[in-house]
Amino acid sequence: MDFRPSPRAAELAEAVQAFVRDEIEPVEQRVRRADAGDGRWQVPPQVRELQRRARAQGLWNLFLPAGHEGEYARRYGTRGGAGLSTVEYAPVAEATGWSFLAPYVFNCNAPDTGNAEVLLRYGSPQQRERWLDPLLDGRIRSAFAMTEPGVASSDATNMQLTAVVDGDEVVLDGRKWWTTGVGHPDCSVLIVMGLTDPGAHRYARHSMVLVPIDAPGVKVERMLDTMGFFDEPFGHGEVSFTGVRVPLSNVIAGPGRAFEIAQGRLGPGRVHHAMRLVGLAERALHLACERALSRTAFGKPLANLGGNRERIADARIAINSLRLLIMHAAWKLDTEGPMAAMSEVSQIKVAAPNVAQRVIDFAMQIHGGAGLSSDFPLAAAWTAARAIRLADGPDEVHRGVVARIELAGHGAAR
Amino acid sequence: MDFRPSPRAAELAEAVQAFVRDEIEPVEQRVRRADAGDGRWQVPPQVRELQRRARAQGLWNLFLPAGHEGEYARRYGTRGGAGLSTVEYAPVAEATGWSFLAPYVFNCNAPDTGNAEVLLRYGSPQQRERWLDPLLDGRIRSAFAMTEPGVASSDATNMQLTAVVDGDEVVLDGRKWWTTGVGHPDCSVLIVMGLTDPGAHRYARHSMVLVPIDAPGVKVERMLDTMGFFDEPFGHGEVSFTGVRVPLSNVIAGPGRAFEIAQGRLGPGRVHHAMRLVGLAERALHLACERALSRTAFGKPLANLGGNRERIADARIAINSLRLLIMHAAWKLDTEGPMAAMSEVSQIKVAAPNVAQRVIDFAMQIHGGAGLSSDFPLAAAWTAARAIRLADGPDEVHRGVVARIELAGHGAAR
Amino acid sequence: MDFRPSPRAAELAEAVQAFVRDEIEPVEQRVRRADAGDGRWQVPPQVRELQRRARAQGLWNLFLPAGHEGEYARRYGTRGGAGLSTVEYAPVAEATGWSFLAPYVFNCNAPDTGNAEVLLRYGSPQQRERWLDPLLDGRIRSAFAMTEPGVASSDATNMQLTAVVDGDEVVLDGRKWWTTGVGHPDCSVLIVMGLTDPGAHRYARHSMVLVPIDAPGVKVERMLDTMGFFDEPFGHGEVSFTGVRVPLSNVIAGPGRAFEIAQGRLGPGRVHHAMRLVGLAERALHLACERALSRTAFGKPLANLGGNRERIADARIAINSLRLLIMHAAWKLDTEGPMAAMSEVSQIKVAAPNVAQRVIDFAMQIHGGAGLSSDFPLAAAWTAARAIRLADGPDEVHRGVVARIELAGHGAAR
Amino acid sequence: MDFRPSPRAAELAEAVQAFVRDEIEPVEQRVRRADAGDGRWQVPPQVRELQRRARAQGLWNLFLPAGHEGEYARRYGTRGGAGLSTVEYAPVAEATGWSFLAPYVFNCNAPDTGNAEVLLRYGSPQQRERWLDPLLDGRIRSAFAMTEPGVASSDATNMQLTAVVDGDEVVLDGRKWWTTGVGHPDCSVLIVMGLTDPGAHRYARHSMVLVPIDAPGVKVERMLDTMGFFDEPFGHGEVSFTGVRVPLSNVIAGPGRAFEIAQGRLGPGRVHHAMRLVGLAERALHLACERALSRTAFGKPLANLGGNRERIADARIAINSLRLLIMHAAWKLDTEGPMAAMSEVSQIKVAAPNVAQRVIDFAMQIHGGAGLSSDFPLAAAWTAARAIRLADGPDEVHRGVVARIELAGHGAAR
Repeated sequence: MDFRPSPRAAELAEAVQAFVRDEIEPVEQRVRRADAGDGRWQVPPQVRELQRRARAQGLWNLFLPAGHEGEYARRYGTRGGAGLSTVEYAPVAEATGWSFLAPYVFNCNAPDTGNAEVLLRYGSPQQRERWLDPLLDGRIRSAFAMTEPGVASSDATNMQLTAVVDGDEVVLDGRKWWTTGVGHPDCSVLIVMGLTDPGAHRYARHSMVLVPIDAPGVKVERMLDTMGFFDEPFGHGEVSFTGVRVPLSNVIAGPGRAFEIAQGRLGPGRVHHAMRLVGLAERALHLACERALSRTAFGKPLANLGGNRERIADARIAINSLRLLIMHAAWKLDTEGPMAAMSEVSQIKVAAPNVAQRVIDFAMQIHGGAGLSSDFPLAAAWTAARAIRLADGPDEVHRGVVARIELAGHGAAR
Repeated sequence: MDFRPSPRAAELAEAVQAFVRDEIEPVEQRVRRADAGDGRWQVPPQVRELQRRARAQGLWNLFLPAGHEGEYARRYGTRGGAGLSTVEYAPVAEATGWSFLAPYVFNCNAPDTGNAEVLLRYGSPQQRERWLDPLLDGRIRSAFAMTEPGVASSDATNMQLTAVVDGDEVVLDGRKWWTTGVGHPDCSVLIVMGLTDPGAHRYARHSMVLVPIDAPGVKVERMLDTMGFFDEPFGHGEVSFTGVRVPLSNVIAGPGRAFEIAQGRLGPGRVHHAMRLVGLAERALHLACERALSRTAFGKPLANLGGNRERIADARIAINSLRLLIMHAAWKLDTEGPMAAMSEVSQIKVAAPNVAQRVIDFAMQIHGGAGLSSDFPLAAAWTAARAIRLADGPDEVHRGVVARIELAGHGAAR
Repeated sequence: MDFRPSPRAAELAEAVQAFVRDEIEPVEQRVRRADAGDGRWQVPPQVRELQRRARAQGLWNLFLPAGHEGEYARRYGTRGGAGLSTVEYAPVAEATGWSFLAPYVFNCNAPDTGNAEVLLRYGSPQQRERWLDPLLDGRIRSAFAMTEPGVASSDATNMQLTAVVDGDEVVLDGRKWWTTGVGHPDCSVLIVMGLTDPGAHRYARHSMVLVPIDAPGVKVERMLDTMGFFDEPFGHGEVSFTGVRVPLSNVIAGPGRAFEIAQGRLGPGRVHHAMRLVGLAERALHLACERALSRTAFGKPLANLGGNRERIADARIAINSLRLLIMHAAWKLDTEGPMAAMSEVSQIKVAAPNVAQRVIDFAMQIHGGAGLSSDFPLAAAWTAARAIRLADGPDEVHRGVVARIELAGHGAAR
Repeated sequence: MDFRPSPRAAELAEAVQAFVRDEIEPVEQRVRRADAGDGRWQVPPQVRELQRRARAQGLWNLFLPAGHEGEYARRYGTRGGAGLSTVEYAPVAEATGWSFLAPYVFNCNAPDTGNAEVLLRYGSPQQRERWLDPLLDGRIRSAFAMTEPGVASSDATNMQLTAVVDGDEVVLDGRKWWTTGVGHPDCSVLIVMGLTDPGAHRYARHSMVLVPIDAPGVKVERMLDTMGFFDEPFGHGEVSFTGVRVPLSNVIAGPGRAFEIAQGRLGPGRVHHAMRLVGLAERALHLACERALSRTAFGKPLANLGGNRERIADARIAINSLRLLIMHAAWKLDTEGPMAAMSEVSQIKVAAPNVAQRVIDFAMQIHGGAGLSSDFPLAAAWTAARAIRLADGPDEVHRGVVARIELAGHGAAR
């Protein structure tokens, strides 16, 4: 057993850490403030500039997985040709979790990374040329539309938006929400999950369809907030689809394969999400320690009052345990594949946001009122962690997966 | 031991409940949406109309405590002459906690209630005439300025804004934040806690000063959000005071009495806050039960999935325990006074927001993404509960009070 | 709302408290040590002596509920004729919870109290004369046999021991365990729940039968420990019944009424159990505070180290909340009866042992190794609390009851 | 990063697992029952036989660390010459944690392993010949005497038993408790920590002294129980030392070096303890799953009732996280040494017993009454886990270490 990162993973993670610390953190708070104003659905010019600088250092598209990256890495200058394993990318993802701006700066933000991976693995050459290329080049953004307002989306077989094949076209009718990324001014395309064949096996009824945002019948009804935050400029939209027609060739991998694609999309994506939450939790603990040492009440630094040290210790224990759990899941994904790692991936999907939420809550508390305000990144961090307890399947569904696999090991029918 | 409410407490609580259910709930969501727009620092006309109707029914100023209310109750038509004990007012406060709009509709909202009580108990006739009368009449609003950005305000002796006596004037210099109510268009006056005599005993150094919002040198620097919410139109401001001069007669009860006043202000006020949180938690549980029965996943209503019933039961147990704890603290306040009830008041200050936060978190979770959005009052409710874990002294300070009193019963020096 | 106890409840609770403090506590530890030796299934002579003294003060059979106690109270000298309501008895029960010896000393111990209540309410005159009289006189003890080793007894309809009517006799065959009280040298009779008519409605199949311990075919197979403790001299036995014949007149209230009887037995009994746990938790907190002030580490009393004060505060908050929850359930039982109070009784059945377990765990921790040993009553107290999370229905079943009633209030079919 | 165990670690762990499953588990329950009788402070003959068989397979002294084991491994036939790194031994320790009998069967039980390591690293040739050899040969047992009844032993500088140098002898006076192993019939020697030079630096005052159990003045006053369990035949004793004289050559590594030795003793020892707790937790979860699938209530297997699946999932997540945390600490110990791994070792000292306690508590609950009895190994397992929250430093002290190191990373003076 060897817990050392590979040399190039270590090198890239350090480069990203340094960029976050030296380039992003100093402007982060200014960008956040700008969000509040009229231009909040625009990309602030500082962010475009940060992207240019990151790309110049090759810190660009680092998420592209081994086996798929060759040509794209060359084309867009990804440092060292990248092609990292999940284990290798994990510490990079942690480093980008430190700031809410970082994933976008490095062109490694959700849902674009997941959408890019889907196109890499399942996309036709035409699909890749039209959408993957500009995505990796940072020219366009994309959105992912799965959850629906009218049904319990924790059970994905519930999805009711229809994607009916009509000759060489597909017709979409229905409504999605929590369509992440749809507010971005550069958003050009949505991957939409729709019901194609209600009579098929329950995991073969749905399709994934590429829908240009300007297709007639697509309407962003409104942007949704989570706990008062709109996550500009990406945002989460409620989107209606009324008789939207796109060519049949826009269906990814052919009709009925939505579940297979969603599954493949989510394994490494959940590792990335989870590791970004580790980065977020680390930052919260870092801020908590700084506050604990710099503020004084009742004649003592906060660090020496009541249970604060115990909470710092519990945070450290929880974060370290979590990071190792995620690294192990990543390693299992890399070595045995997504089916073998299904329990491990669900385990981190439960553990990561819960640990992060707890650590951030403590950090908010030790900051007093400031911790709840937008003067610190904690309130937004808490909201991000809280939302992930529901996104991509609520805690309860993932606990169910873990228990099912555990009991199957004791002879229970699945 | 008799757990029945007094007849008039029961009658008033039911009237308030009915008003909230029949008049406020149906418009609540529309008012919330209006908040988001340009007029968010205005009072929506529907709310002014609700106030008129509530007042017409005598559901107005019900918080006015026994012994002080006679004249004001008559003057403003408080139903039954009110003058409720803390125990009697508690179920009324619970009923107003059900909707974020309700306290203002009934002219029973913080910080105006606390400020009104201060003026009732400690105010001079002139102070009462100038500010208490219009407050109770709903013509003006007020703010309360205690917490400061530069110091750990959990230790109130840290407060550094100066309120120096200069002849027959007081001069204020310094900065406050989390000054609640200062964003309201009708806000006319702030009660400001300032340091008057640094050489006095640590609980006799500070004064409470009435400062008109338009006094030269008062500047609202910015409005603060909690978790993305600005709590319009009241809001929480950061306010600077630069050479602000007000007459010495604006000092409440004379210089050096701020701690005594704050203490008296906070006892019943904390009961009100806590009972409103009970109402909020009840509403969250109510919404959770409705969702649990109306949504289906994996072929079952959510109520029958996993641990949801256990969480409903735990929520019910926690809420019932909390309500009783608060009622008992109220009873002790009424029968033995604030000094005797100091531990009990700190107990509810800890228990109420923590219970509410937990119940609301569950309710959000069972609502899926909708629970985090502004389509339901849950995200705002959670934020309110979370903020109260810090407002008026963080959890940690109140746990310290409870432990100190417990240990004193075992012979420890306080 | 009035939280004062009735004068006689206050007087009796104080008398019991004083007796526990002055008479029982000083010998408690010696009695516990004696337990470990050979005579552990005997009643230590000190305990018999304590019983005599308690009885001489009329602190005897105080549990006898109003309406049933007249004659017995007179006969056995219960102070003031007792006949306490559940609310009135609750603080007495709390006082007896302070020491593991106390309930027996006052002739108020489980399962004898529950069995006595069953005989009072449902017993025939002959049954009462033969078993109730000597129970109340302290001449005999009784046991209660419901749980079975072979089935999930949390679902009481699972019970499989048969109690078949054969002419004017009942024949019992099967096996019970956790039959509490069966190890006592004075144990003379068991109340046994058996399956009489498998074809009847599921709540009308079982009977409660009085079985003399010396009836042929009754065999105590072994005594069971909980976490290493045997709770001598009462104990919990595994008991086999092989062709045991008793007269039909030994069936309480006639065949098929076991569920009705069990229900009536459990309401006030659960209040008693819960209030004894409050007493136990109070003692644990008391010991914790004493330890926190008297021991020093790293140059400070334990009270001033880390989160100890926060834990003391949380314990105080939890105990106070719990006590009020129980008092309210008792009040509802008294005023509206067991059907109306079903949720409330299940709420305290969940809350009481969980709160007590948590408080005692903290008290053990602050005592270091001593807290786990038998030098302090904490380890046994913890075990008692832990066991009650399973006895009379596990936490999970009672949470289910609370949730079912909560959801029924929102329109769910029960 | 590579999570695969080394081939020989895998081979040994599997061999130990198989032995535990095939040889130990089938007799475990019979041995436990025998404990209860008169011979409980004897070694049951089945256990001696199991030791013979384990040794015949070379599953003996596997704990002996690399660098020290050569000669002893050869002498006593340790399979493959062993000499495992901490990382390699960890899965072996986990396998032995599955049964309370296993560590002794493989001659890998505390405190003998820790004592053997002390003698290996710090013992003189004479000390090793006299005590290490027979220990590794299984001819004698040893005890470790550090904690004292009269002081808060969480602060080890509090220890007051004196070990005064008097010419070429050391004289010990004082009292210890929780002296583990002293009840074993083969116990021949104690390692006793005593105060030698009160004037020295606080970490140089104490010595570790080898004291034969039959030295005049050594008296085992009594055996202590934890939660009713005596852990026979090893046990935990209270031992008095009255003018006990031993040769100066019995002081390990010379006077004043107790802290240094204790530190070195505890690093790998804490990994062993922690991994045994992982094994214990795994067994509890295994039993819980079996019970969940085999018992039925309310018409369903327990696995499908309420929150049971969620609890199974949470247990799996917690155990996996814990195991990884321990493996990482072991790896850091191996690669960077005990000073660098101080936080990591304290982290696992906190996490391991708390996780195990929680998992076992759930397993007990799902077993109903049986889970609390000695019919299942759960109650004893819970007690073992609970005791380790205090042994070798309570949770609170280790949290303090973790927080101190965390804050030091932010510039706090240690």
